[in-house]
Amino acid sequence: MDIVLIGAGNLATRLGLRLRECNHRIVQVYSRTEASAKLLASLLGSEWTTQPDEISPEGQLYLISVSDKAVESVLAQMNFGNRLVAHTAGSMPMDVLQPFTINYGVFYPLQTFSKSREVDFAQIPICIEANSPENLEILHKLGRSISNDIREIDTVQRRQLHLSAVFVCNFVNHLYAVGEELLKEEKIDFDILKPLISETAAKAVEFSPKEVQTGPAVRYDRNVIDKHLEMLKSHSQWNDIYKLMSESIHQLHRH
Amino acid sequence: MDIVLIGAGNLATRLGLRLRECNHRIVQVYSRTEASAKLLASLLGSEWTTQPDEISPEGQLYLISVSDKAVESVLAQMNFGNRLVAHTAGSMPMDVLQPFTINYGVFYPLQTFSKSREVDFAQIPICIEANSPENLEILHKLGRSISNDIREIDTVQRRQLHLSAVFVCNFVNHLYAVGEELLKEEKIDFDILKPLISETAAKAVEFSPKEVQTGPAVRYDRNVIDKHLEMLKSHSQWNDIYKLMSESIHQLHRH
Repeated sequence: MDIVLIGAGNLATRLGLRLRECNHRIVQVYSRTEASAKLLASLLGSEWTTQPDEISPEGQLYLISVSDKAVESVLAQMNFGNRLVAHTAGSMPMDVLQPFTINYGVFYPLQTFSKSREVDFAQIPICIEANSPENLEILHKLGRSISNDIREIDTVQRRQLHLSAVFVCNFVNHLYAVGEELLKEEKIDFDILKPLISETAAKAVEFSPKEVQTGPAVRYDRNVIDKHLEMLKSHSQWNDIYKLMSESIHQLHRH
Repeated sequence: MDIVLIGAGNLATRLGLRLRECNHRIVQVYSRTEASAKLLASLLGSEWTTQPDEISPEGQLYLISVSDKAVESVLAQMNFGNRLVAHTAGSMPMDVLQPFTINYGVFYPLQTFSKSREVDFAQIPICIEANSPENLEILHKLGRSISNDIREIDTVQRRQLHLSAVFVCNFVNHLYAVGEELLKEEKIDFDILKPLISETAAKAVEFSPKEVQTGPAVRYDRNVIDKHLEMLKSHSQWNDIYKLMSESIHQLHRH
């Protein structure tokens, strides 16, 4: 397909590279930041612009990957005619696109992206939704060309999925960061935790996380918990996190 | 070495199997639960007992893997003479062993163990501590025979390490479980989160988790955060976790 990318962040970068790799043509990259537009366009061999009113009319599909806050203001400045427009965000309803075009949908790859780290795109679930069966089929076909896992997920499900992703990705990463900070205080290298981090993820993926829960909170082992809270007394936020997580674990395992 | 295992839980099981695989001899397994003692003994080709006073005098090393609460009561009933005794717990000081023998130490494999899941033991950091250079050398040698990663970690460091492990393993797993529960409410299969869970762990392990933090909390995007808190209003504990984690992420990234 001939695709115009609106946005040049982590997601647009990884998605653009994958589309290119799978023989789609990236017509143009738009970003309001010139350096980002130029860089991604050079990686993709495409045109670029920083002006919404200079966006190419030659796209068969316009993929919107700007931040949630920017979407509506950027779209308002463009003229899509009847062309297919899809956003790539977990948190936005499909209908935010409705005022701007008669052909629209969502193309949401459920993954955390970095500009500098390659991911195996074929394994990434692509969640699609569209305002007509024809548009859904177009997004489905595009999805299949870059991944083996395409799922029809509606707006209500997608926002729940995005909320879950915040827990299992953003919040999990923060717990890793807290672990790292705690180790620094005793001059222990973070790499000592790596096998544990990998195994914890691998176990949850193989079994159900609820079934493999371990640790002092499951039986609410006061001995260990009180000692840990005492160790955290100079970190009031982490102390609160410890208390709340332990209670929540205990709660989930009482039933 | 000729080793007696005191305890037959997940850790004792995986450790016993690995020791056996690396040509150590397990003399005997003690557990106060007969079924557990028998089962592990049969896997290891060893004797077993449920009576502390029947523990074999033939061990060169006694590895204590009973729960933190049970350690002192079990030890009080045994007679170790001058033989080397090491516990395998992250949360206990080495000195809990001091009343019971003149040769003691700690042999703590930093990993989460399941009876049913094999782990690559060669990658597991084994944290050792001992009351003399000679005993440390014995534990070091034993460690090297089953893993490539042996570290000298003292009691103060070990308890901090254990606290960190609670964050990056037990609490992380609970966040996976919350994600799973949230998806159930919208009838979405948990397997959709698996690539995200794996990638989040892989990224933290390759980079520093603090550097790769993403999500609405980093810039405290009120739009998304308020919507998520609204979605969680019937789950007050998860709502509190969401709020606290978002504040803590924002706090860590303000500096």
